Amino acid sequence: MKLVDRLTSDRLALSRLLTEVENDTPEGRAALDALYPHSGKAHLIGVTGSPGTGKSSLVNRLALHYRRQTGERIAILAVDPTSPFTGGAVLGDRVRMRDLAGDEGVFIRSMATRGSLGGLAHTTAALTRVFDAAGYAIIIIETVGAGQSEVDIARLAHTTLVVEAPNFGDDIQAIKAGILEIADILVLNKADLPGVEVTERALRGMLEMVHPAQRSFLHHGQVGKIDSKTSAPENSWIPPILRTIAIHAQGFDELTAAIARHREFLLQYGGWSHRERARLETEMETLIQETLTARFRAGIRELDYEEVLAKVFDHRLSPREAVKEMLNGRYI
Amino acid sequence: MKLVDRLTSDRLALSRLLTEVENDTPEGRAALDALYPHSGKAHLIGVTGSPGTGKSSLVNRLALHYRRQTGERIAILAVDPTSPFTGGAVLGDRVRMRDLAGDEGVFIRSMATRGSLGGLAHTTAALTRVFDAAGYAIIIIETVGAGQSEVDIARLAHTTLVVEAPNFGDDIQAIKAGILEIADILVLNKADLPGVEVTERALRGMLEMVHPAQRSFLHHGQVGKIDSKTSAPENSWIPPILRTIAIHAQGFDELTAAIARHREFLLQYGGWSHRERARLETEMETLIQETLTARFRAGIRELDYEEVLAKVFDHRLSPREAVKEMLNGRYI
Repeated sequence: MKLVDRLTSDRLALSRLLTEVENDTPEGRAALDALYPHSGKAHLIGVTGSPGTGKSSLVNRLALHYRRQTGERIAILAVDPTSPFTGGAVLGDRVRMRDLAGDEGVFIRSMATRGSLGGLAHTTAALTRVFDAAGYAIIIIETVGAGQSEVDIARLAHTTLVVEAPNFGDDIQAIKAGILEIADILVLNKADLPGVEVTERALRGMLEMVHPAQRSFLHHGQVGKIDSKTSAPENSWIPPILRTIAIHAQGFDELTAAIARHREFLLQYGGWSHRERARLETEMETLIQETLTARFRAGIRELDYEEVLAKVFDHRLSPREAVKEMLNGRYI
Repeated sequence: MKLVDRLTSDRLALSRLLTEVENDTPEGRAALDALYPHSGKAHLIGVTGSPGTGKSSLVNRLALHYRRQTGERIAILAVDPTSPFTGGAVLGDRVRMRDLAGDEGVFIRSMATRGSLGGLAHTTAALTRVFDAAGYAIIIIETVGAGQSEVDIARLAHTTLVVEAPNFGDDIQAIKAGILEIADILVLNKADLPGVEVTERALRGMLEMVHPAQRSFLHHGQVGKIDSKTSAPENSWIPPILRTIAIHAQGFDELTAAIARHREFLLQYGGWSHRERARLETEMETLIQETLTARFRAGIRELDYEEVLAKVFDHRLSPREAVKEMLNGRYI
């Protein structure tokens, strides 16, 4: 049986392959190459937001909603970059299981940070490619709201949801403005809490700062009904603000409709392939860097490298001078 | 006049050089090489924590306290990785100016994210080196609490302060556990707010998870009086929890004493040079990667690169296969 067919029918085989890929083993690498021609079909949805916004419940509910609505298989990839030493996604998984257990059409995988953040984005991309080739039509990538990692995920996902909740502390506003820049859709979850109006006004104000050119359009539509295709320039997307109450399953018809609209928008105006290309270019650059560095390390003698390092530690040679010396053939 | 002497006496020259270094210009690079032998003396203090903990006030107050206590020159480097597009440290600067304006012994610089996070850590390291060579004895590196960036700063700083505040939301706890792992000193700021006891107990509980081997010692000392040299194994450091009220200047004698104790500890047991070396090795590896990649890009013809990329976009060749093809001499 071909690998791609086995993955489609055998959850255990899929799970094992994900581990190989996550650990970057030779088997994992070979499988990624073999699966690559079968990938490129899935819709990658990034979901990010601070703790306390109910992000994980929202992801669960979104997956359930898609299952009922489309019957398509859904993958959830939970990435937790906050704890590089112990990993932090385990608790989230257990809560998740209660809601989604027993549904063979949903595959949940969590991932804690491995090594550098570049490495994290790289591994996340590789795992989504496995799901993609295995026929998962929708892949939800969830992260804790943590600076650079959202940006990397926005680069990876086709559609990025930023989740907020009412009244989530005044000081958090400084962070929000940064996060808003990567949002394709803003979700105001826990919309039954007091303060929802104030928070929505604040979000709208910040959206205007981020998208000044579209300022006049932001007030045209109702909340959640801004339609970029009628009220704004054709080739620009204005992030709608949608209210949800994840624990009561409210607002998900509107949310999935907005996600579908964003997908259409990307396909129509070239954004879909543009994002794919940017992603692949980044991936290739990382691979080129890794390969070149590995070759260099294999070519230089350990003792020589230590000798140069010692000069740097003694402040006799700056790091840049040391690298120049090593790469200009004095040592290799 | 030698560059290093000019920087010591001329704030404008220092400011201009920092910009050159931040923009990675040839002048900036040359200056970094020239300054390198003069660096390696400053104490790098990282300060991190979520918005709302009063972190910036604490940094201001700490700088003022050091000025009065030691007369040494202090640099503050505020790094904001949350907003890669617009930068977000501007408001913080304005507040800061009120407290520290007019003191020639304090130099404040803010930096928004440029490019990748690896690049951010790299630039931060370079700027601290300039301050270091220019005779700033204490360099405070402040970041917004944002996952990977704290980890990178913990790697950069000699002493890392993690700032918390009472009762800062239940959901934030998930993040705290990760942050605690990088703390050398835990600062419980806003200690006059209700809930301080509960928060301190929670922090202590989490510290025990992170440092299980030292569990029995954590309850020996009073808050802020845990002395690693008497109550714990000689070569291990137990992060003390210290209470401060930054806006009322309370707790700073204890805080600076704890920082001094941590410095002594690092110098005595080799941690100081160990951190320096780890930092320099990372820096050199980044430089090696950059240099090798730049050479590769200069060596391959743009058209050839585009041809391979096109195959990847069409899913005829996986990124890894494409890189192998390019590096194995078919194109160069």
